[in-house]
Amino acid sequence: MISVDTSERLIETTRDLLWERGYVGTSPKAIQQRSGIGQGSMYHHFDGKPDLALAAITRTAEELRAQAEAELTGPGTAVERVAAYLRREREVLRGCPVGRLTQDPDVMADPTLRGPVQETFAWIRSRITDVLNEGRERGEVDAVLDPVATAATVVAVLQGGYVLARAAGSVEPFTQAIDGVLGLLTPRA
Amino acid sequence: MISVDTSERLIETTRDLLWERGYVGTSPKAIQQRSGIGQGSMYHHFDGKPDLALAAITRTAEELRAQAEAELTGPGTAVERVAAYLRREREVLRGCPVGRLTQDPDVMADPTLRGPVQETFAWIRSRITDVLNEGRERGEVDAVLDPVATAATVVAVLQGGYVLARAAGSVEPFTQAIDGVLGLLTPRA
Repeated sequence: MISVDTSERLIETTRDLLWERGYVGTSPKAIQQRSGIGQGSMYHHFDGKPDLALAAITRTAEELRAQAEAELTGPGTAVERVAAYLRREREVLRGCPVGRLTQDPDVMADPTLRGPVQETFAWIRSRITDVLNEGRERGEVDAVLDPVATAATVVAVLQGGYVLARAAGSVEPFTQAIDGVLGLLTPRA
Repeated sequence: MISVDTSERLIETTRDLLWERGYVGTSPKAIQQRSGIGQGSMYHHFDGKPDLALAAITRTAEELRAQAEAELTGPGTAVERVAAYLRREREVLRGCPVGRLTQDPDVMADPTLRGPVQETFAWIRSRITDVLNEGRERGEVDAVLDPVATAATVVAVLQGGYVLARAAGSVEPFTQAIDGVLGLLTPRA
């Protein structure tokens, strides 16, 4: 169906542009030019840039969540599952397509657009807290560590690793930050 | 001198706008409007937006570096000095004025504008590596930890903490991420 294809192409183009240039840097005109879809057709499918951005952000968030869930429910100890999540192959220098939206003042100021971003981070922190709690019960994680705080650290390292990599123009500090937190998580007691 | 005041006001206004809206979202017109300085006067002092942005970014980077240096050379153990750096009072929900620039494609694509961002993060990672090395020698940090990787983790947690706070619209996950990494750094062996 041409209609579904058009809608799909608009969403995928918007996802790419949001990842690359952010919300402020993504104009309806840029979406139309890159997708090859005209203004009339775009406004037939979506009310406007916020509506289309919401569809794009929601899809990106759902994909990231499904991928993280698969890694965190995989085999291995708690630390191994967190490692599987952190060490997944990523386009590091592009940054995180969800995390980068937190730097977009227009996304943060709009509760509807911020919703999927907020939910995604709340979910991943909660999911990693569960994994660390399981690990503590099994003696795979030092009992002295607070699972909630440690889970926030794990998620922050990933997001901050992207920042360091982009600043350096190199994946190296990202890899170091991940290696570092996994070293810190490894039981010492 | 009026000339110095004008230049100062342009730089400070640009710093605020870059922090708030990023490079892409900061137009020469917005700088003029917020500073109350006209186009002619602006172009008398600066060649254009990149020139003015470089002055603003350089100053922000220098200030952050001086502040971090004071905290990291303060009294206490290695972990206490890292804690002083991480727990400094910050405007968490505004994010990091240097880190947020890594999400700006135009800043990252321009080696001159990226320079101060790259140098600041390289410097802070190296400085924290020094502190952790000293701590290892004094038995304040577990010897099994790699100082270079752990320093990257510490810097990443701070940057990622901002992302989590902005996503949540709350300082809480930032504080948790910092508490978590300080818990992980505390000697257990």
